[in-house]
Amino acid sequence: MKQAHRPLHPTSMKPLGILGGGQLARMMVLKAHEMGLPVLVLSENPDDPAAQVTQGWVQGKLDDEKTLKTFLARCQRVTFESEFLDADRLATLSRATRTPIFPKPRHMALLQDRWTQKKLLLKHGLPTSPFVRVDDESSAQKAFNQFDGQLVFKKRRFGYDGYGTFVVRNAKDLASFLPELEHNPHGFIAEAFIPFQRELAIMAVRGQKGEVLTFPFVETYQENSRCLWVKGPLSAKQNRTLKQLQKRIQDFLKTMGYVGAMGIELFDTGREILVNELAPRVHNSGHYSLDALSEDQFSLHLKAVLGYELQAPQLIAPGFAMLNLLGSSARAPQWHLSPEVHLHWYGKNQNRAGRKMGHINTLGLTPEKALALALKHRSDFRV
Amino acid sequence: MKQAHRPLHPTSMKPLGILGGGQLARMMVLKAHEMGLPVLVLSENPDDPAAQVTQGWVQGKLDDEKTLKTFLARCQRVTFESEFLDADRLATLSRATRTPIFPKPRHMALLQDRWTQKKLLLKHGLPTSPFVRVDDESSAQKAFNQFDGQLVFKKRRFGYDGYGTFVVRNAKDLASFLPELEHNPHGFIAEAFIPFQRELAIMAVRGQKGEVLTFPFVETYQENSRCLWVKGPLSAKQNRTLKQLQKRIQDFLKTMGYVGAMGIELFDTGREILVNELAPRVHNSGHYSLDALSEDQFSLHLKAVLGYELQAPQLIAPGFAMLNLLGSSARAPQWHLSPEVHLHWYGKNQNRAGRKMGHINTLGLTPEKALALALKHRSDFRV
Repeated sequence: MKQAHRPLHPTSMKPLGILGGGQLARMMVLKAHEMGLPVLVLSENPDDPAAQVTQGWVQGKLDDEKTLKTFLARCQRVTFESEFLDADRLATLSRATRTPIFPKPRHMALLQDRWTQKKLLLKHGLPTSPFVRVDDESSAQKAFNQFDGQLVFKKRRFGYDGYGTFVVRNAKDLASFLPELEHNPHGFIAEAFIPFQRELAIMAVRGQKGEVLTFPFVETYQENSRCLWVKGPLSAKQNRTLKQLQKRIQDFLKTMGYVGAMGIELFDTGREILVNELAPRVHNSGHYSLDALSEDQFSLHLKAVLGYELQAPQLIAPGFAMLNLLGSSARAPQWHLSPEVHLHWYGKNQNRAGRKMGHINTLGLTPEKALALALKHRSDFRV
Repeated sequence: MKQAHRPLHPTSMKPLGILGGGQLARMMVLKAHEMGLPVLVLSENPDDPAAQVTQGWVQGKLDDEKTLKTFLARCQRVTFESEFLDADRLATLSRATRTPIFPKPRHMALLQDRWTQKKLLLKHGLPTSPFVRVDDESSAQKAFNQFDGQLVFKKRRFGYDGYGTFVVRNAKDLASFLPELEHNPHGFIAEAFIPFQRELAIMAVRGQKGEVLTFPFVETYQENSRCLWVKGPLSAKQNRTLKQLQKRIQDFLKTMGYVGAMGIELFDTGREILVNELAPRVHNSGHYSLDALSEDQFSLHLKAVLGYELQAPQLIAPGFAMLNLLGSSARAPQWHLSPEVHLHWYGKNQNRAGRKMGHINTLGLTPEKALALALKHRSDFRV
């Protein structure tokens, strides 16, 4: 009677809560609907991307304690699309309402701060660039000297897509950075500037039973610090460095007791692979999985959060690519639905330069062919 | 400047309307959300499967003229999940509001009536079983004699999943059928009973530019007249009969000027393949396409309705299967999310025996292996 002891899932269960209403929440909601998992989204505006695609939506601010508490009490499990929330408050409310939050608030806290994140990488033996903490002019100057005037200052909190990142290559750059110290009470870290050859990324997901699965390594390309495209898979089989890193990442999630999806950005210097950044959530670099893998990052993340068993998804083509559709102005976007590409459009109410409005996924006989196809279709979209 | 003349799609467009809120509408809505197409659903209850998964929902009855007119006026194009609507009224309202409806109401009219549907098959040279029209006891008796007492009476309208179908094999069966004539003002057809070896099906989709694409032939298995599973693909390459039929179906949609997806059910007698039934919409026998093809029937149908170009999707595994999750009682369903199968659950508010509550899709090295996997996981669902 092994069957009888399986965790069955009653449809009358309380909903799975999602904090935030952007595109990551929207794609989670769509996959939850597919599997029939009841969801409840908390976001500020009814025209938020995720609010549009479900009946289960609550209007409210993510930084309001009472709103959060009421929301958590209505849900059986809660997850989030952004790590920039008040992690301590979430931990307290999670205990008070007995609603587990995954990834765990303490992991959110560690990863939302670049200083604690970097220390975590060191602790778990993951290769990363040298770094120091910077709180004032004196420590900034010290970092400048220590890294031979080739360094990057990064806001400890709330940085994304290049916002909050300051590359310094000489004393003049340093001088123009210094005023930033005053505006950022959470402080900075300084990292040695890494002259990487290319950027890579990998998604990892850990379930509650301890199983960790990793997606293929991919190459990512940034334009103006924003991800423009992703292509893959990179073959890890012949590459001992990648294989080793994959193993370390798996051990890292296991040792932490992490639950859910994690996006991991990497620098490939040609000689070594360094971990650049971790995000405790589904991630832009994993969007290709919607069309290129037998199971996507959103479904796997939801299953992990709910405690279901996970299995590594299979590639469904030898090559794939993802192209972000980034706004180039404030005009209303127009597009052409081509039969050759898979469009994922987020339904944002306003366009603006650099904003992620959607993405397209393509498949091909090689990563390069898939990418060429995606780039060919870029002109189908006027964003 | 060929590029400039392409039909671009403004996000500010009026929504695509969907008449009906069941599982077929739900799956259309989810795919529309994925592509960022604004949708508006018209259905009776807020807990209808499609109503749950969108902000764009209007409460109303599909047989209320004023409701329909207001709804059509709000939409740029309208489609439907069931052909059992008042087609003449829809045609009139479509003209009045200048909102095209696809598939066209006149095709809905032809296909919602088994008598006109059968005549249409004959007209287009599609093989089908011999049939006669039955309006009264005398024509019923005549049909009984003509088909040597081995026949099937089918309601001309509103029949589905075996409801409205009466198999007659002797005079006693005939006698118990006759009272039905009084309760069905639309009448019946009688068909020769076909001792088929197995049932097959195929999906076809035609775009507005005239291109027709067909999915692979599949085998379908019915239990108590309800589809239990589908497996495929059947190889049409070595089979001249199937190849010929595929060509005829494509010509049929082209000649009709049909727009959208059509589900085609077939009988395989071992000697010939007969068309059993057509449905002018997405179809249960095409649900496997959500996970087994590079593009699914719902996305292709929506693209056809909106006038976008279509391309035949590719198989992503050598074998696939779909298993319907049919209610067996009124208890609250429970399920286990397995990593090996793709669950599509419709979120119906009530379970009952025989009701289609969801389906699972599987892939495999052969159709048989995929089906075995699906059947193995049947016990994960207590419906």
